[in-house]
Amino acid sequence: MQHAFITGAAGFIGSSLTDRLLADGASVTGWDNFSTGQERFLEGALQHPRFRLVRGDNLDLPALTAAMKGADFVFHLAANADIKDGWQHPRKDLEQNTIATFNVLEAMRANGVKRIAFSSTGSVYGEALVSPDKPTPETDLFPIQTSLYGASKTAGEGLLGAYAEGGQIDEAYIFRFVSILGERYTHGHVFDFYQQLLEHPDRLRVLGDGTQRKSYLYVQDCLDAMLHVTRAHTARDAKHHTQIYHLGTPEFVQVNDSIGHICATLGVKPKLEYTGGNRGWIGDNPFIFLDTKKIQATGWKPKLTIAQGIVQTLRWLEANRWVYEARH
Amino acid sequence: MQHAFITGAAGFIGSSLTDRLLADGASVTGWDNFSTGQERFLEGALQHPRFRLVRGDNLDLPALTAAMKGADFVFHLAANADIKDGWQHPRKDLEQNTIATFNVLEAMRANGVKRIAFSSTGSVYGEALVSPDKPTPETDLFPIQTSLYGASKTAGEGLLGAYAEGGQIDEAYIFRFVSILGERYTHGHVFDFYQQLLEHPDRLRVLGDGTQRKSYLYVQDCLDAMLHVTRAHTARDAKHHTQIYHLGTPEFVQVNDSIGHICATLGVKPKLEYTGGNRGWIGDNPFIFLDTKKIQATGWKPKLTIAQGIVQTLRWLEANRWVYEARH
Repeated sequence: MQHAFITGAAGFIGSSLTDRLLADGASVTGWDNFSTGQERFLEGALQHPRFRLVRGDNLDLPALTAAMKGADFVFHLAANADIKDGWQHPRKDLEQNTIATFNVLEAMRANGVKRIAFSSTGSVYGEALVSPDKPTPETDLFPIQTSLYGASKTAGEGLLGAYAEGGQIDEAYIFRFVSILGERYTHGHVFDFYQQLLEHPDRLRVLGDGTQRKSYLYVQDCLDAMLHVTRAHTARDAKHHTQIYHLGTPEFVQVNDSIGHICATLGVKPKLEYTGGNRGWIGDNPFIFLDTKKIQATGWKPKLTIAQGIVQTLRWLEANRWVYEARH
Repeated sequence: MQHAFITGAAGFIGSSLTDRLLADGASVTGWDNFSTGQERFLEGALQHPRFRLVRGDNLDLPALTAAMKGADFVFHLAANADIKDGWQHPRKDLEQNTIATFNVLEAMRANGVKRIAFSSTGSVYGEALVSPDKPTPETDLFPIQTSLYGASKTAGEGLLGAYAEGGQIDEAYIFRFVSILGERYTHGHVFDFYQQLLEHPDRLRVLGDGTQRKSYLYVQDCLDAMLHVTRAHTARDAKHHTQIYHLGTPEFVQVNDSIGHICATLGVKPKLEYTGGNRGWIGDNPFIFLDTKKIQATGWKPKLTIAQGIVQTLRWLEANRWVYEARH
């Protein structure tokens, strides 16, 4: 790609991708409404002659269409990722995930941009797994949705498929992420646990009973995977011009294991206070473990284990405590 | 149910359901924006003391919420069902199917209505079938969407699941329909073919090559099935409080077979002009055949075959040619 358009460019993954693409020689237009994005994440990019930042919201289709002009690839990463509190603002997932994705596709159509990568999620599987204790393949059974977030991402995926089959785009890449960790991480359990332990190193409140099993991927491994397959044009001749890939590590950890890594890294021994139940919140999936054979078959593999990713994340949070202030 | 709220109450299926429920002793509030609904379909209902008609659009959430007051069950049947021409107005599926379903669920939440039946479609499977030549089960593989219509209905299904799992509703019924036939049918291939044969009985233009295999269900059989399972509260204790049922006949016909039934019934022998290709339109699925074992296991079965349904439909169209005028 020559000129990438990145929605959510000031976010955790978006800003990391921006830096990578600039380093690789591409031009980047970053688009963000700064609802959760951090301008500090773009400090380096903003010095770069091939970077342009446009502030705007995906619900503003005319502005989005204008900003996208000249791009030849869209990374659509902007989303409401506040999964836990979906019921406090149910319209947010609809607007910022479903309608936003529709607008991105319409802006692409207006600009003749034919390639898109979309950040989806393992949450699209709800809980309806083929094999409850085995990794979930991309071709798992058609699930019943169990969260507003999962439903909104499923809706976004559906739109990509329809646009690709309808000849509106040539290559649609749907990446179903596990939780992503690493530098600029500002959301999720390591973030929350570290915050708690800064405030009171002697105790830690844990949603659920700590037995939830989840998988994580280091952000640079995630970017490697996305760039690897999009550069190989794997969706060009795929059925429906659409490729779905799981991005994760071939391992999972219990929340309790993760707490162990965090406490060992920080050298603390808090008293654990569980809220109870095998789900952290309504619609939480107690077991997320995506089969990553398909993406690994392309030649990609993750460089960091989950434990290494957690340590890397903590090191960054320790050096960047400003992100806790910036969020409030 | 005591008081049903029906979206799309002036439509083909909605008006037929209205009459059934009134005859069964329920109160009915009918809601329709009359974009395709026909007031003549409600002529009988409008004479009934237990029927109330409210004109309104699902995008108008305050009006929808006000109209729903007092209902204890929602049949959400309103939709943009113009599948073929989706690309002429891609926002319509998003608005009238996805956002509309969100608004219906929000209106239910505001009114404390806890039970909903939703008309979905076999189109949610796209083309990604487990067994391309066998009937598709409700638990088929997670498909790539291939049409805006299918994507928008999938999005609607996802919202129902999330609301049910989130404790916002107690019973969610998702009915994936094949094409429905019968009295008040105003949309689809029998409608189009009959219209053509009225205008020029000597020739018939057929989208695709006529080999597309589809399944159909007679509208009264469809209503029987919906009322049968909702009255048995099958979703109340189901996983995620959600039940998905295929509604169809355990048979399919080729478009060419269907043409044979139509021509035999009407006594015409038109020259067939095929547009070619094994798809009638972009995103058309050349084989729709839903496995109906699950709904049949509840004790329901269809009374009419596909061929009988086609004949019944033609008889009604012959006696109600006004519907062709009313649509234009």
